[in-house]
Amino acid sequence: MLTVLFAAPAPLWPKYEAPLAAAFTQAGLSVRMANPDTAPETVDYIIFAPGGPLTDFTPYRNARAVLSLWAGVERIVSNPTLSQPLARMVDPSLSEGMVEWVSGHVLRYHLGMDAHILGQDGIWRGALTPPLARERGVTILGLGELGSACARALAALNFRVTGWSRSPRALPAVTCLAGHGTLAAALAGAEILVTLLPNTPDTENLLNAATLAQLPRGARLINPGRGNVIDDAALLAALDSGQIAHATLDVFRTEPLPPAHPYWAHPGVTVTPHIAAETRPASAALAIAENIRRDHAGQPLLNLVDRARGY
Amino acid sequence: MLTVLFAAPAPLWPKYEAPLAAAFTQAGLSVRMANPDTAPETVDYIIFAPGGPLTDFTPYRNARAVLSLWAGVERIVSNPTLSQPLARMVDPSLSEGMVEWVSGHVLRYHLGMDAHILGQDGIWRGALTPPLARERGVTILGLGELGSACARALAALNFRVTGWSRSPRALPAVTCLAGHGTLAAALAGAEILVTLLPNTPDTENLLNAATLAQLPRGARLINPGRGNVIDDAALLAALDSGQIAHATLDVFRTEPLPPAHPYWAHPGVTVTPHIAAETRPASAALAIAENIRRDHAGQPLLNLVDRARGY
Repeated sequence: MLTVLFAAPAPLWPKYEAPLAAAFTQAGLSVRMANPDTAPETVDYIIFAPGGPLTDFTPYRNARAVLSLWAGVERIVSNPTLSQPLARMVDPSLSEGMVEWVSGHVLRYHLGMDAHILGQDGIWRGALTPPLARERGVTILGLGELGSACARALAALNFRVTGWSRSPRALPAVTCLAGHGTLAAALAGAEILVTLLPNTPDTENLLNAATLAQLPRGARLINPGRGNVIDDAALLAALDSGQIAHATLDVFRTEPLPPAHPYWAHPGVTVTPHIAAETRPASAALAIAENIRRDHAGQPLLNLVDRARGY
Repeated sequence: MLTVLFAAPAPLWPKYEAPLAAAFTQAGLSVRMANPDTAPETVDYIIFAPGGPLTDFTPYRNARAVLSLWAGVERIVSNPTLSQPLARMVDPSLSEGMVEWVSGHVLRYHLGMDAHILGQDGIWRGALTPPLARERGVTILGLGELGSACARALAALNFRVTGWSRSPRALPAVTCLAGHGTLAAALAGAEILVTLLPNTPDTENLLNAATLAQLPRGARLINPGRGNVIDDAALLAALDSGQIAHATLDVFRTEPLPPAHPYWAHPGVTVTPHIAAETRPASAALAIAENIRRDHAGQPLLNLVDRARGY
């Protein structure tokens, strides 16, 4: 019998209770969920999402691992009380949802859809043939689980895809660049730029006045990754100058994005409410149960976070 | 030396002159383009698009074939003076453009993009998670060159794709239905319906009050094929009743669509100006030169039109 603590904001529990029970059973695990009376030292595994009751991991001295419910771990990785191994969520349905959202918005920019969606004024604007996808340069910053999946999908749609990451990667039909020395080259080819970088000290404000200026004039920006990657003031200035023609932003430093934030009113920005990819309880529960089963059986945990690197 | 007549609206000639010359050279053909003084009986091949000077094919009694510049041949196939073999345009870049346009608009509906593009009002509308593509039924009516290419691309994006055609087809990862007896089943599974049928007497008004009612309530319709497939009054009524939630229409019975047409003003319709796929001179010229080369070498013409069937 394993004792598992669900340490996440309260509204999540009703969504996860049944899927977790089903996933533990399917994994052959006998699990007792911890409750407020459970002694911390008896907890074997912690399922964690930020914003819940748990901020001090110290009392859970026998917990064998902390399993993040989310893919992004920036709100836990720097917690000084966390001594247990930390695993990120890698939910296949999260990748699927992200690939669909990114493919859709890249095609939206590629095809110039907004001009039609917003321009139903009776004027037949003839055909200004857009280039084909194979003539369109798309760059993805970040080639982790989600970035790689998006790069593969966009390459399958024939886009001329460049991927940029911290450490070298290889993906079929994608030009892979690595390290800060190649960032300018990655940006120079980006008629459409997609950012799927983790939020680390290294990526904070990576898109600033200097790097935005390295994009081709009139580039489009899509950010379904992390809000902190963008220097908001620099992006607004680049939108005003025309250096960036349009941006679709799904993540922000403060969420919900406050109503008075200039992004809402800017004609060059589409704000979406952090919907690009959502962890789905059914598949997330399976991923967590499988990781607990592995650890309990003496196999290495999947998707361990490198605490020094931050993801 | 072959004599080739370019019989198309005058503005097309400057776009095709250089690509055709290059393509003929590349195909190893020695070609003289016909001019107004050329005797009709000396013409070997006719490159044709409707709307130009040629309506009577009788004088071209030695022409070995008519090569349509467009994929759609409904404006030539019924010409009673046409006795020569007729080949449709199958331009790989036409397929590519169509796949990109259809994939983009299917993803637009799948993701509910318009609500965000049109709703930048400062209200953070939380996440109402859309289904994944693999939970979303998309039906394509018409599995010719373009329909098949779109079906394959949407299946690769994980959509649950049903394809419907007159005669049986088989495509990997696509549920293929054939014949009028299966139309109701094809429509019943279509949360998003894409029509890529040719314009024939059989397909005229195929989407009418009765067949639109066979779609699931709130279905989305995308028509990049031929305008005559839709009974416009029935579609407007289905949009008003909510049976059809939204339609994106790229082709119409009259083009340009007149400014007073109710489609322009209807909030449930996006009109696009016949841009879903365009024949591109460079690749179209290669396709035509290759077909002439084949015929001249005694090989069968590619993409011959079945005059009885109409495509």
